[in-house]
Amino acid sequence: MTSPTLHPDSGAPQHFPVVIVGAGPAGLTIGNILRAASVDCLVLEMETREFIERRPRAGVIEEWAVRGLEQRGLATNLLARAERHTECEFRFGGRRYRFGYAQLTGTHHWVYPQPLLVTDLVREYADVRGGAVRFEVRDVALHDLDTDHPSVTYTDPETGQQQVVRCDFVAGCDGGRGVTRTALPPERAHISRQDYGIGWLALLAEAPPSSDCVLFGMHPRGFAGHMPRSPEVTRYYLECPPGDAPENWPDDRVWTELQARLGVEDRPPLTQGRLIEKRVLDMHNYVIEPMVFGRLFLAGDAAHLTAPIAAKGMNLALNDAFLLGDALVAYLTKGDGTGLDGYSAACLGRVWDYQEFSMWLSEVYHGTSSGDPYRAGTTLARLRRLFGSPAAGMAFAEQYLGKNADY
Amino acid sequence: MTSPTLHPDSGAPQHFPVVIVGAGPAGLTIGNILRAASVDCLVLEMETREFIERRPRAGVIEEWAVRGLEQRGLATNLLARAERHTECEFRFGGRRYRFGYAQLTGTHHWVYPQPLLVTDLVREYADVRGGAVRFEVRDVALHDLDTDHPSVTYTDPETGQQQVVRCDFVAGCDGGRGVTRTALPPERAHISRQDYGIGWLALLAEAPPSSDCVLFGMHPRGFAGHMPRSPEVTRYYLECPPGDAPENWPDDRVWTELQARLGVEDRPPLTQGRLIEKRVLDMHNYVIEPMVFGRLFLAGDAAHLTAPIAAKGMNLALNDAFLLGDALVAYLTKGDGTGLDGYSAACLGRVWDYQEFSMWLSEVYHGTSSGDPYRAGTTLARLRRLFGSPAAGMAFAEQYLGKNADY
Repeated sequence: MTSPTLHPDSGAPQHFPVVIVGAGPAGLTIGNILRAASVDCLVLEMETREFIERRPRAGVIEEWAVRGLEQRGLATNLLARAERHTECEFRFGGRRYRFGYAQLTGTHHWVYPQPLLVTDLVREYADVRGGAVRFEVRDVALHDLDTDHPSVTYTDPETGQQQVVRCDFVAGCDGGRGVTRTALPPERAHISRQDYGIGWLALLAEAPPSSDCVLFGMHPRGFAGHMPRSPEVTRYYLECPPGDAPENWPDDRVWTELQARLGVEDRPPLTQGRLIEKRVLDMHNYVIEPMVFGRLFLAGDAAHLTAPIAAKGMNLALNDAFLLGDALVAYLTKGDGTGLDGYSAACLGRVWDYQEFSMWLSEVYHGTSSGDPYRAGTTLARLRRLFGSPAAGMAFAEQYLGKNADY
Repeated sequence: MTSPTLHPDSGAPQHFPVVIVGAGPAGLTIGNILRAASVDCLVLEMETREFIERRPRAGVIEEWAVRGLEQRGLATNLLARAERHTECEFRFGGRRYRFGYAQLTGTHHWVYPQPLLVTDLVREYADVRGGAVRFEVRDVALHDLDTDHPSVTYTDPETGQQQVVRCDFVAGCDGGRGVTRTALPPERAHISRQDYGIGWLALLAEAPPSSDCVLFGMHPRGFAGHMPRSPEVTRYYLECPPGDAPENWPDDRVWTELQARLGVEDRPPLTQGRLIEKRVLDMHNYVIEPMVFGRLFLAGDAAHLTAPIAAKGMNLALNDAFLLGDALVAYLTKGDGTGLDGYSAACLGRVWDYQEFSMWLSEVYHGTSSGDPYRAGTTLARLRRLFGSPAAGMAFAEQYLGKNADY
């Protein structure tokens, strides 16, 4: 944690109360919250604006998170354009079982692809609220985090010069592969890891959805998922070996497996289309505790990764962002440090709750194809209970929706 | 599956419509149901009557099972003498959390030690309903199970002679170490197994309970349990390595660990006493599917073992016994075979439901001491959710009580 050594070509040090590393949903939400309170901040992003506005990622936003965005003036487009989902469908043994979580709970899911949300957030932050942002920066490094005068250095993409930004706080929002989490000294960062030992082939198809809702297929050959994204685009997932190569999945094989794993007696085959994304995700989780080191506050995937099994990642990122944005505003405008002091603990309750649910749900999705007949038996028991016990159905619906998870 | 070869000294073949192997809760309940319908049957037991009336085993009976016994005239003593439990208590982090499952559900647990139930059942069967029973038999073997004239041979303990019993049906109720399940040809018996990789040191203490309810202690050093059995006797459990020897657990060590793992700030230490039982249980489960081979019908631990984690074993045995007893009566008195045809599937719904719950609960008990910080984190999330979400609390209470599990 050394102080930055200024290169002879460096520009004069800038100063911002907060430097936000990473222009994803967490970083941009924090930036918007700060700007709404007239707190200056700088967002540093490795990619171009065009890239982050198109990068396919999550799509499900929970009701409390939508309301959190709305309260902060960040949900106008979302509320106008997002789809409301009220049901999901489990398919196994050639049959289908609808689960109407909205009818049970009075709460629904919102589907709004992450690129649209990021487009909204970056426009509001940079173009409306006048927030500073640098795209395509390189060599981001954090310094003096355990002092009250931290700084961030980066290389300016146009001049090639190193820039120094003095600040009061750094928000680490640059995801699981970013640099901010590597700034935590190993002896101070307690990392809990979990590896599912499975992969998902993530697919985007230029094809209309084949159902009005999310489909989960539990099949001896592996899990398959169907997530409507728009009238023209559908996300699909196929369980595959971890580390599998997309090249092993020619389009024919993809569609054959999707049809087999999601097929049911009383529905026509899936509507096929061109596959415009094909990535293998190795399913793993981690949680860093605490999420704070000195003046560095981690948020979103930088602090905790949850495999996309339960579609929780972006929701956790937004929860962190609301808490951190509000806490920074309270400290920087009123000198109230209680939010910052309690930030990590406040986030981690929901983080661990969602991690637990993801593990539980993973067993439902992957038990049948595990090759272990005992796990297959208990998986089917979980599914039967969801549909046979109103109490179990309600408990599942709440976790699926992220309702009442804030303890 | 050969026909019995009669030893020259053998007595003349006897005939009973049903031979029941094993005088535990399952076998004796089936015998009582048969005798109530005036169906003749023979119970064969390896141990003495005195032994089975004293053997310490399970203690928790679920409400539906008590009602099932009551409907069959088998619960008079139980209803008069069993304790009603309405709450349990989770202890972790030096604090205690009461869970009032009866208030949530309107249903309570019954605690009636298995030796008392077996004593009631054997008395009713042999002394009141006139059922035939042979104790201390040796060399039990099953024959011709895949024909309509099966038979059972055994060695009479008094004469040393082999006895042959011709029958129509065999009920295999001789537990996880019995012979009946070994009579299933391997290619016909699908066995699903699960090994927790942990042990429990099962203890009986001549000491009054230290709480009015069951206590579960989740501690980094391992799980500990406290189960009131009577005003003078308390059952305790201590998590230990699988295969550990009771000799490794001198009384001093037992009490030190119990005090540490179950200790809380606002309660005095546990009341200690003489330890009258000290056994190591290796935690594992299995399920045999189907539970039927020809004329052999398995019931209880012979068909499926569930580690005592959730106190489900005797309840599953009673469920099987109700179903099999009624099905045999229907067939033998009215020629109605539907109960026998559907027996295995009818049992297995509850079996797998309880297996799933035992696995879930095991993670709650053992996650904290697993040495895996991720599992410790998700374990605490499960516990927090039980106490933070009414829906999760209700779903747990139902599973804990075995309520609404009959699908």
